[in-house]
Amino acid sequence: MRKILLNAFNMNSVGHIAHGLWRHPRDNSVDYTNIEYWTDLAKLLEKGMFDGVFMADVIGINDVYGSSPEAACEKAVQVPINDPMLIVSAMAAVTNNLGFGVTSNLTYESPYLLARRFSTLDHLTKGRVGWNVVTGYLDSAARGLGLTQQIEHSRRYDMADDYMDCVYKLWERSWEDGSVLRNRETGVFADTTKVHTIEHSGPFVKMSAAHLCEPSPQRTPVLYQAGSSPRGQAFAGKHAECVFITGRTPSDTAKLVADIRNAAAAADRNPRGIRVFLGVVVIVGKTNAEAHEKLEEYKRYASPEGGLVHLCSSTGIDYSKYDLDEPITFSKTESMVSVVEALTTRNAGQQWTVRKLLKQMEIGCRMAPIVGDPMEVADALETWVREADVDGFNLIRTVTPESFADFVELVVPELQNRGVYKTEYAHGTLREKLFDDGAYLPSDHVGSRFHN
Amino acid sequence: MRKILLNAFNMNSVGHIAHGLWRHPRDNSVDYTNIEYWTDLAKLLEKGMFDGVFMADVIGINDVYGSSPEAACEKAVQVPINDPMLIVSAMAAVTNNLGFGVTSNLTYESPYLLARRFSTLDHLTKGRVGWNVVTGYLDSAARGLGLTQQIEHSRRYDMADDYMDCVYKLWERSWEDGSVLRNRETGVFADTTKVHTIEHSGPFVKMSAAHLCEPSPQRTPVLYQAGSSPRGQAFAGKHAECVFITGRTPSDTAKLVADIRNAAAAADRNPRGIRVFLGVVVIVGKTNAEAHEKLEEYKRYASPEGGLVHLCSSTGIDYSKYDLDEPITFSKTESMVSVVEALTTRNAGQQWTVRKLLKQMEIGCRMAPIVGDPMEVADALETWVREADVDGFNLIRTVTPESFADFVELVVPELQNRGVYKTEYAHGTLREKLFDDGAYLPSDHVGSRFHN
Repeated sequence: MRKILLNAFNMNSVGHIAHGLWRHPRDNSVDYTNIEYWTDLAKLLEKGMFDGVFMADVIGINDVYGSSPEAACEKAVQVPINDPMLIVSAMAAVTNNLGFGVTSNLTYESPYLLARRFSTLDHLTKGRVGWNVVTGYLDSAARGLGLTQQIEHSRRYDMADDYMDCVYKLWERSWEDGSVLRNRETGVFADTTKVHTIEHSGPFVKMSAAHLCEPSPQRTPVLYQAGSSPRGQAFAGKHAECVFITGRTPSDTAKLVADIRNAAAAADRNPRGIRVFLGVVVIVGKTNAEAHEKLEEYKRYASPEGGLVHLCSSTGIDYSKYDLDEPITFSKTESMVSVVEALTTRNAGQQWTVRKLLKQMEIGCRMAPIVGDPMEVADALETWVREADVDGFNLIRTVTPESFADFVELVVPELQNRGVYKTEYAHGTLREKLFDDGAYLPSDHVGSRFHN
Repeated sequence: MRKILLNAFNMNSVGHIAHGLWRHPRDNSVDYTNIEYWTDLAKLLEKGMFDGVFMADVIGINDVYGSSPEAACEKAVQVPINDPMLIVSAMAAVTNNLGFGVTSNLTYESPYLLARRFSTLDHLTKGRVGWNVVTGYLDSAARGLGLTQQIEHSRRYDMADDYMDCVYKLWERSWEDGSVLRNRETGVFADTTKVHTIEHSGPFVKMSAAHLCEPSPQRTPVLYQAGSSPRGQAFAGKHAECVFITGRTPSDTAKLVADIRNAAAAADRNPRGIRVFLGVVVIVGKTNAEAHEKLEEYKRYASPEGGLVHLCSSTGIDYSKYDLDEPITFSKTESMVSVVEALTTRNAGQQWTVRKLLKQMEIGCRMAPIVGDPMEVADALETWVREADVDGFNLIRTVTPESFADFVELVVPELQNRGVYKTEYAHGTLREKLFDDGAYLPSDHVGSRFHN
């Protein structure tokens, strides 16, 4: 069996997914503004040999609930939210192997400057950076950028395809291998015959400039993607090296994973060249009873209402307009299709009401937690890998940093004993660690065609 | 006498101002891509009780020389250049008092996202961040952003005024003092009656959103500005708390400093509420002879040609078109007026040629270095403070980190012995340290009017 990959899923905010748990006496997520919060976390994760910390991000406020930002602000549902990119160098300085997947929305940033940001981080981390490519999903973000509403879903992905071509050119083609000489004798820093101005004139993105940065260890950062709409899957099939998904049961999820691998094959790529990470909530104790006690304790602080506020944005539906037991009517807008499908198709026959949704979110989110002793948790994770064909997990935080520390202390040794988890880090960049191949994009990836 | 303020002037690049010195055997500026380069520097500067590291930045390539980016690339004249903002958290993690002035160009970034970046850094550094507000000066930057040329100079400043109003609203007004409760008992993170959506509808900038971040220690970062054109000075008079200038003699420079303080007075501010930093190159030895030996040694590695490539962009003139002894005709475009004035008015009667310019740039830039033993250097610095009324210095790097280390070892103790330099850091945020006043913008600053 191949080794299970592992990311810690986090956000530069108080509330991420399991809402309300910042209230827990042992939770320190309100300290997200402190640098030590992040450096301590990075050291803990590297001790547990996590492949990476995966930093989610969202621009805008979850203001669908009650058509107002109030509920999100009051309950800290992904707001306030600081920039995830700016914590990376501090975490990199205290680690040697941990990867950093950073979410960055391409809709509102120029490729010229975004490419520089990721090259800078790839240099500083010695090739440990990934980019989670998102196009946003909140109208409130668009209003923050001076638009009245966000750009339509499939058009955002068309823009994103164009944008990716532009950044591939900057990262792969502008400075050739061997362009940087650093020759102190001759005073020639770069061989200018190998530094090229990038001309890009796509339907959405236009530019003419050389990349501002010399080649970084990976050139293009490891590309993550999480869109699971049909258009999002096609985008992932073409561009993503790692995909983040959610799912409620292994059998339901197997189809989604197959779809993602098929999308890669449709883009003439090795379907196994995409690493699929499943988001999981794990509550582990030394014994099953201890784990369940912990779950019950967590529930006392969790905020199902916070979860509902979040879900409103994820599904585009304002549940504040429903009575507790009124049947909910879902409309499948394309961008929301995956979440709504998870609620409808995959829970066939279920007539949803707000009461049922709240009941399902006892730990502050809709994820069904894996609860048990280390063997039970390891069994569950192995089942997911075997039955759903996922490559690894994005571990969602509950009480922080306790949930990560528990996993490192209890689950990691069990997985190691079973031979399904690394006992030392592989050498090289994040891409080399994840794929046991080169530091640059593989030859079947569209971005590699831009490398000269 | 008030205490002399001190910044280390740097850039996330190989060549900054004194070009060619990366060739020196003891110079490590080619290691700018390594995180240790920055954390070691930060520790050195804090040991020397520097007020801050001032990170310059430029977007685009100095491609006026020969109408081509080649010379700049070959000689590493501010290219390659990585993002300065992304190194801050690593440096902040290894220091407690050092400030971080970060250059960021507002022309190509949305206020919504730029405000979040600075708030994030202000949180992570516990209030040690400043923003050097620039509007850019290279057409090559504009082309990288998909424009054919940059926006006209005075229009850029009109945009900048509008932009500043918008970010002041985000930083000062969106989350009131007392809005963040973090109440674990009630589950109320924020008092939403004190969190406000910012509506900004200026001539250039439009947005409608709450700031994404809770109030940081300083709210608005300490504002730096370096524009010395008339329009730039008016902008600085209104917004800047620290101004960075260059000058060749104290008497010439006294007028510029008076102009800046008058611009502050014209904006109804305390003229002494602006801290003026003069850029200086210092080459110090234990003895005068040792210092001059060092100067001669540095000159052997410096690149006057690199300095000329840089000067082409600063003056908008392509000197590659001139023969060595051909008289140079300067045209005073408004954005270049200060540099050209320094070359013409302030060197009245001098008929410039390329040969003379190159001769003046023996250490790779036009700055006349202060060369001597610690007493001589301290004398020169005190003379600048007394005669030109500057508040402190931006120490320009030559051989790196040697030039900073020499200053810390030799000059700092001498200044301390004279009672003109701090012997311990003041408490509090960067603003409190610099002004011995509050953490927020002072009441006579335009930005403070947005604070509710």
